[in-house]
Amino acid sequence: MRLALDAIPPFDHAAADAAQARQNRLTKPTGSLARLEDLSVQLAGMTGQAFPSAENAVIFIYAADHGVAAAHGVSAYPPAVTAQMVYNFARGGAVINALASEISAKLIVADVGVMEEIPGDLNIAHHKVRPGTDDWTIGPAMTEADAITAITVGQHLVRECSPLGLALVGEMGIGNTTTAAVLAAVLLGVPPSEIVGPGTGVDGEALARKHAVVALGMARHGTNKDPLALLASLGGLEIAAMTGTILAAAARRVPVVLDGFISTVAGAIAVQFDPAARDYLIASHRSPEPGHRLLLAHLGLTPLLDLGLRLGEASGAALAVPLLRASVRILREVATFGEAGVSDKGGG
Amino acid sequence: MRLALDAIPPFDHAAADAAQARQNRLTKPTGSLARLEDLSVQLAGMTGQAFPSAENAVIFIYAADHGVAAAHGVSAYPPAVTAQMVYNFARGGAVINALASEISAKLIVADVGVMEEIPGDLNIAHHKVRPGTDDWTIGPAMTEADAITAITVGQHLVRECSPLGLALVGEMGIGNTTTAAVLAAVLLGVPPSEIVGPGTGVDGEALARKHAVVALGMARHGTNKDPLALLASLGGLEIAAMTGTILAAAARRVPVVLDGFISTVAGAIAVQFDPAARDYLIASHRSPEPGHRLLLAHLGLTPLLDLGLRLGEASGAALAVPLLRASVRILREVATFGEAGVSDKGGG
Repeated sequence: MRLALDAIPPFDHAAADAAQARQNRLTKPTGSLARLEDLSVQLAGMTGQAFPSAENAVIFIYAADHGVAAAHGVSAYPPAVTAQMVYNFARGGAVINALASEISAKLIVADVGVMEEIPGDLNIAHHKVRPGTDDWTIGPAMTEADAITAITVGQHLVRECSPLGLALVGEMGIGNTTTAAVLAAVLLGVPPSEIVGPGTGVDGEALARKHAVVALGMARHGTNKDPLALLASLGGLEIAAMTGTILAAAARRVPVVLDGFISTVAGAIAVQFDPAARDYLIASHRSPEPGHRLLLAHLGLTPLLDLGLRLGEASGAALAVPLLRASVRILREVATFGEAGVSDKGGG
Repeated sequence: MRLALDAIPPFDHAAADAAQARQNRLTKPTGSLARLEDLSVQLAGMTGQAFPSAENAVIFIYAADHGVAAAHGVSAYPPAVTAQMVYNFARGGAVINALASEISAKLIVADVGVMEEIPGDLNIAHHKVRPGTDDWTIGPAMTEADAITAITVGQHLVRECSPLGLALVGEMGIGNTTTAAVLAAVLLGVPPSEIVGPGTGVDGEALARKHAVVALGMARHGTNKDPLALLASLGGLEIAAMTGTILAAAARRVPVVLDGFISTVAGAIAVQFDPAARDYLIASHRSPEPGHRLLLAHLGLTPLLDLGLRLGEASGAALAVPLLRASVRILREVATFGEAGVSDKGGG
């Protein structure tokens, strides 16, 4: 099985320049909306439209289990919670369900590797590649063929999704900050001690175990940054699927809104597959995970929000969408100095 | 003429505790939504409702001119822009019009002291107290009676507004970061050099002039922190009106969303009138004005956004509203661990 990646078009500088020129003529002091202006300009360059839209947001959540979590106690929660949360998503009881309603986004929850069998009639996307990864402290997480299949699921869900104006990527997988920490340490070339954090809330002995497990993973799988080898060695299935979604969205000029640490790892892996993906990434927020800050700097991304969020499931991505929408509405609706008869700086 | 202030009820700790207890049972790691959880708890305590709403947002924008801007060149824009922007608001062409649409908020624009005569048939609230303040480098900005009248306008517009679930306060007034800087310096007891910033974009000679003018104001009007004396000595009419709106909203248990530096000065003056107002303030964002950071710390407020915004006209306040709405929707709609059959921390 070979991985097929669609070509990612370059960022449209002409559209971005047109948006910037318009921003400079709007009735407000030049640059006074700062990041919000930049955001509209970025969205113009990504979509190739001088007046971009930020509607038709779709939230892609991939759920999968991690053998490393079952084998070592690296999470504050038991692995069974991955499946329990999938049921919660399907019933509409999770945080992301409330946020999806709030921003009128479509929510797609896909099982790409939950350990437990999920009944086929549950209202989610059923694409289980395998029931969780193997423990990567003693061997590879999965085969390269499995990693390719998981990436392909992520591409497929984007390809069959219409309309799709914004792709929000998120995940659910007990233990996945541990997997993400090893991936980030390899990608950034830094010791795991600079990356490992509390995840959803480990401390004390469990945190020490997490550090040790991450060090074991680094020692076993080395420093090969080949993205497919990395995903096969360490997982996770949800990270591979997010990577596929990011690559397929970028290939369609669809802006990608990253969530926290785990989805940003997927963003970095997507960039490792194709550096052109970088220009389609928007960092929604900065989480307290130490690795997240380093990874954002590595990708050259500045997050929009910094609220201490560490939930995952695309919650931070959803919270940033209103800022995207505000930025493009301003670009579209605000009058220029000329139209409004307002004196520009130095005028009057 | 005497100022009549309505009593501000104390923060409802029982409602806040109920909201916090519910947050702790929702299907997410404890505290994983951090600031967003705190926000819902704050809104519960402000409104006195364990399941608060953040609907029925009303944006109050007060426009007024500053004699100090006409006399000295302290702004990047000529004073005529205050009136021009009032016309722009009335025609729907300003940034806040786009943002009000985006968050489905009602927008009230009031002339409380624009120098130019505004035609009575323009679709705004006509409450001009006087055509701008006097230059406070050579005398008081206005009489205490004028300051009381401006505060009363701000109270009046709240009292006659129904429904009113959130009060966003903002302003338009060329030169008002200069007035706000003197007010902040007096309130904080710090030298003006720590407060003065570029406002909407002065630099070089104009910025040096702004520093000198602020120092003149400090020297002339001293360090009396009596809020009414401060408003009369320095203005501005829009700051007085915002103060009235903040006090009247707090008296009705309506959460107040501050915008940037100028509206936060009004918040600090409101707290000077009645310390109980403090518990009804939400800081939407941190602006790059150096005085804003100090003032937020003084009030013990942590802003939700930090996007470099320096526009005013309640734009930052409007951008924060989706976060408030998301926080209360999560509180209302997300399932508890018990309801969803999800294992809590340490369970399973």
